[in-house]
Amino acid sequence: MSTYPKYLREFACFDDISDEKIEKIAQFSDAVCYPANTLLFREGDVGTKLYFLRSGEVEVLFNIGEEGQVRVDTLSSEDIAGCSAIIEPFQYTASERCLTDVEVLEIDNLALRELMEEDCPLGLIIQKQVIKMMMKRILDYRMNVLLT
Amino acid sequence: MSTYPKYLREFACFDDISDEKIEKIAQFSDAVCYPANTLLFREGDVGTKLYFLRSGEVEVLFNIGEEGQVRVDTLSSEDIAGCSAIIEPFQYTASERCLTDVEVLEIDNLALRELMEEDCPLGLIIQKQVIKMMMKRILDYRMNVLLT
Repeated sequence: MSTYPKYLREFACFDDISDEKIEKIAQFSDAVCYPANTLLFREGDVGTKLYFLRSGEVEVLFNIGEEGQVRVDTLSSEDIAGCSAIIEPFQYTASERCLTDVEVLEIDNLALRELMEEDCPLGLIIQKQVIKMMMKRILDYRMNVLLT
Repeated sequence: MSTYPKYLREFACFDDISDEKIEKIAQFSDAVCYPANTLLFREGDVGTKLYFLRSGEVEVLFNIGEEGQVRVDTLSSEDIAGCSAIIEPFQYTASERCLTDVEVLEIDNLALRELMEEDCPLGLIIQKQVIKMMMKRILDYRMNVLLT
């Protein structure tokens, strides 16, 4: 498992990270394509990977018992899927399925977490980007309140 | 500006932080009460403080031009208000006003950010807690999708 650093450079969230560190992360990352309908991961599973969406759309599903899975959100290009897995208890909080053919950059979650603990300033930068991304998502939800 | 470390201990998000570090944070924190209708901060303002809600309710307002301010969310006990200010460009992304009488723990944002840079492992722990809290908020929004 490894990919070209240039694939990581496609994502603004890696802007503040040096080439040397990007190369380290690329060593445990992979650029992968999935056909529509592929289930990337299941709610409650141990989060082995983070998925950075390069293209395509992914639906976020909650399991609500007898009714089965219900879509609660849709992710698209530049979003991160599965980021609940970067903090304790390191599990996915939803299932996510490809709505279209999807290109992702997959990052090994355990290797990334180990690198972040080992290289604390890098950890701070990455977590800052996760916070930024989540803040944007919260702003979007709030905007939707205005539209509904 | 300083308060008792026990006020910080009321919040689960400080659980993983040692007494010594909690004492440092308490030195630039304050326990404050605000009457209903107090505007804590305004959208676009430089974020000087983080507000940890001890009791009461706060409304989150967006300015949408001619129609003025519209409520897009409500925060209550254990929530953090103003956390958009912990990352660049360090500004509040909404206005927030007390709906009831409110007790908050106010933390000086600049002092906290400086401490997080200086003490990187502490920075990682605090960021992790912010991520957890945001993740919970995102889950709540998604749950609301099921209810509407």
